[in-house]
Amino acid sequence: MNRVDIPVGFRFSGMASGIKKSGKLDLGLIVSDRPANCAGVFTLNKVIAAPLILTKPNIAKGKCQAILVNSGNANACTGAAGLQTAEMTLQFLAGQLQIADDLIAVASTGVIGEPLPLEPFTTGIPHLVAGLAADQAPVLAEAMMTTDAFSKIAAAEEQGELNYKILGLAKGAGMIHPNMATMLGFVLTDAQVAPELLDEALQQAVQKSFNSISVDGDTSTNDMVLLLANGAANSAVIKSDTDEAKIFSEHLERVLLDLAKMIVRDGEGATKLVEIKVVGAQSEDSARIAACSVATSSLVKTAFFGEDANWGRIIAAVGYSGINIDPNKIDISFNQVPVAVNGLAVGGEQEAAASKVLQLDEFVVTVDLHQGQAESSYYTSDLSYEYVKINADYRT
Amino acid sequence: MNRVDIPVGFRFSGMASGIKKSGKLDLGLIVSDRPANCAGVFTLNKVIAAPLILTKPNIAKGKCQAILVNSGNANACTGAAGLQTAEMTLQFLAGQLQIADDLIAVASTGVIGEPLPLEPFTTGIPHLVAGLAADQAPVLAEAMMTTDAFSKIAAAEEQGELNYKILGLAKGAGMIHPNMATMLGFVLTDAQVAPELLDEALQQAVQKSFNSISVDGDTSTNDMVLLLANGAANSAVIKSDTDEAKIFSEHLERVLLDLAKMIVRDGEGATKLVEIKVVGAQSEDSARIAACSVATSSLVKTAFFGEDANWGRIIAAVGYSGINIDPNKIDISFNQVPVAVNGLAVGGEQEAAASKVLQLDEFVVTVDLHQGQAESSYYTSDLSYEYVKINADYRT
Repeated sequence: MNRVDIPVGFRFSGMASGIKKSGKLDLGLIVSDRPANCAGVFTLNKVIAAPLILTKPNIAKGKCQAILVNSGNANACTGAAGLQTAEMTLQFLAGQLQIADDLIAVASTGVIGEPLPLEPFTTGIPHLVAGLAADQAPVLAEAMMTTDAFSKIAAAEEQGELNYKILGLAKGAGMIHPNMATMLGFVLTDAQVAPELLDEALQQAVQKSFNSISVDGDTSTNDMVLLLANGAANSAVIKSDTDEAKIFSEHLERVLLDLAKMIVRDGEGATKLVEIKVVGAQSEDSARIAACSVATSSLVKTAFFGEDANWGRIIAAVGYSGINIDPNKIDISFNQVPVAVNGLAVGGEQEAAASKVLQLDEFVVTVDLHQGQAESSYYTSDLSYEYVKINADYRT
Repeated sequence: MNRVDIPVGFRFSGMASGIKKSGKLDLGLIVSDRPANCAGVFTLNKVIAAPLILTKPNIAKGKCQAILVNSGNANACTGAAGLQTAEMTLQFLAGQLQIADDLIAVASTGVIGEPLPLEPFTTGIPHLVAGLAADQAPVLAEAMMTTDAFSKIAAAEEQGELNYKILGLAKGAGMIHPNMATMLGFVLTDAQVAPELLDEALQQAVQKSFNSISVDGDTSTNDMVLLLANGAANSAVIKSDTDEAKIFSEHLERVLLDLAKMIVRDGEGATKLVEIKVVGAQSEDSARIAACSVATSSLVKTAFFGEDANWGRIIAAVGYSGINIDPNKIDISFNQVPVAVNGLAVGGEQEAAASKVLQLDEFVVTVDLHQGQAESSYYTSDLSYEYVKINADYRT
């Protein structure tokens, strides 16, 4: 992490507070030197963890200055006691930072249904505040980890007429099935961004990144993505429906997509990152449904591991996705190498060329429905574990 | 397989015809000594394999006398050529058996998108016909297998006022995700059953068995379940809305549920069979949705493997299932041992007792929503593979 990538006015801190019995980092803090405009996307789960009950209304007010995050305990299904603990940590931090309670967001990730102890926070928070520094972002990122094999940081910079940086930090590990673990994402920028743009840009970027990977971040009790724009870069305000807004949205989308791809790559034993791109669809929604169906198919993912250009499993996954299709019009290619045209095998040399594509670490599977102009992508990994060999070797 | 379990008038045959390069059994035949009343349930996939295109209208006519099944090649996504091959095998068999074409059902399972060779059928069918015998049911069951570790046969017998037998044969292996492989089920009875009862009893039994396991049989290109009732037991006709119909439906449901549980148990490395029972729901549909959400959660399944009574993952899966719930009213128990009451941990001794339940090979998880009287069950296995230890050990 190069210090130069850090947006102006943000500082970070992370520590081992004792929440994790392993003694690993488990408590972190992000502070902006001034209240930042903010936007958030939260879990759609009907069971909502205590920290979200406090953070959602605070973010809805439009200003945020600090994010407190712990790993090792989700503070979910912990009832009134859990909510009280979250409130006390929030108030304690507000006192230490000498800012208003409602400028603070709290986030937790870890085990559900176990009481969250208060003591690690009361002893830890003063240390966190004392340790705040711009170069501590990687330590903060590590303190967010649960089953993650590595921490996830991505950055972008605009050096045009406006000058600003965007930094994204995330946790979450891509496993074999959606809903495997909580996804947290914190995105910080020193750009000045109008509140309504912040909201719409975040919604759209989350849809095309965290919500387009085979780990669906919408569904744990604790998922949240927060975007803070503190304006410390002193550039002009970026407003909706302008060229500057478009550029900002593109940068934001790239940062979130980089983080989302890291989450896919963090699947235990995953060796490949595959984009499932459905084109020629009647609507973006139907393209998305079909792409998701292919990306989450264990049969498709085991074939990727087996480096088998098994397009039959792909067309079957499109077939059961629920969208209307004409199987006899579907083309499928691997990195532009066609394996099926009009729903039938191309065979021969092309299949051999496609097998070479499958040996790559990263490739694109394109499914052309020949129904319209809409398209959508979903990102997935292979299923590389030993036990799936039974399926990967099925054709040989 | 005891010969005494075979319904009167059915004969079976199985062989290695060369479709599978491994030389294993891959072609099978079931023949009734007379045309049987029949009913069928077929895949909902928009991509439908060639054999289903022929079999669906034949079954719809209400009479069936023979079922020809091959494994090793699904004859799906094979275009006009594939359909022609299926037609020729059907006609060839009709000639050999000297029965009408439309009394024959054909079924295939295996690789999608590869041409199905005709030759194994033209050389194999005469051997199959010559080998037909009542005691060959196990050989037929083996000839249906693809990734299955074992063949699946279940039986029931009514010895009350009416006397009849039901025999079920299935293939399909429970993997980590729905849609892993084709599911075929053939159910044979020598009862005399009215056509409309046959249809409604099969629909209902499939819903509560093959469609209530974490392997969903609705979605491959080739899935089908056929029910043949040849009346050879010479009992009275069983009609809808009678006590006899109720008894028949119960027998049928038990045979299908036994087969479905075998499919769950056939998951690579699966060590536990778990019933997820959602009670106190507003409707059977919402109970079913919640039960399915829990049964297909990899986090829940890895906790079963870790023998960890991790009810937090269960309540989270109910929470993202989409049904309306009040998390503060939910009770969860393992074989009657409560672990959560009103959405909060019971803790202490009860948790220890629940952990003992999890050490069993087979147990029931009950989720009480306290919203109404409806209930539904889903059957699942643990995720026992080495690689999931990272999640199974997450709490320790």
